[in-house]
Amino acid sequence: MREVLDLVADKWSLHVVSALGDGPRRFTELRRSVDGISQRMLTVTLRGLERDGILTRTVVAAMPPNVTYELTDLGETLLDATAPLIAWSVSSLPTIETARARYDRSRGPAS
Amino acid sequence: MREVLDLVADKWSLHVVSALGDGPRRFTELRRSVDGISQRMLTVTLRGLERDGILTRTVVAAMPPNVTYELTDLGETLLDATAPLIAWSVSSLPTIETARARYDRSRGPAS
Repeated sequence: MREVLDLVADKWSLHVVSALGDGPRRFTELRRSVDGISQRMLTVTLRGLERDGILTRTVVAAMPPNVTYELTDLGETLLDATAPLIAWSVSSLPTIETARARYDRSRGPAS
Repeated sequence: MREVLDLVADKWSLHVVSALGDGPRRFTELRRSVDGISQRMLTVTLRGLERDGILTRTVVAAMPPNVTYELTDLGETLLDATAPLIAWSVSSLPTIETARARYDRSRGPAS
């Protein structure tokens, strides 16, 4: 369990899976939609997710050639499993920001 | 959203929240139940989760004094939100292991 959870409980993996939730994407499109990810980290994350059977990598023989990434059926089930966590993140953000401010005030140099 | 997701989509945070799902725990108990975590990383993870209002830290004035960590109401909702992801990890492990073996065979030095 820990081994798999460690893989998917990785912020970049979750962002990439989430970004593929709307359909196949090219590398450059993913690079744009996953804010803050480096080219190197995106490459590593995509390779890990491909190895685990969560997405497929398809090389399209065009000029110039391009590479498309798409969730597998397993990847779709992972996307579903992450939905509650993403919804929680969105709905809990105000509560968390309040808690952070309170924590920082109680321990800050000005207190 | 990304900011919060980055916090909770951290393997150690998820393991600690999961370990607190059965009730309050002391530092040493957490250290034992979160396999592979260092003392330093556990300290940092607990502080982050306390700051975000996900757990409380209570110092019990005993001899010797001890410190107990417990999920807040917000922490309980996070635990609920992670349950599908944890269940997915458990149920998908065989499929993932098969995918990994296939990937490694197709790219290994012996292929």
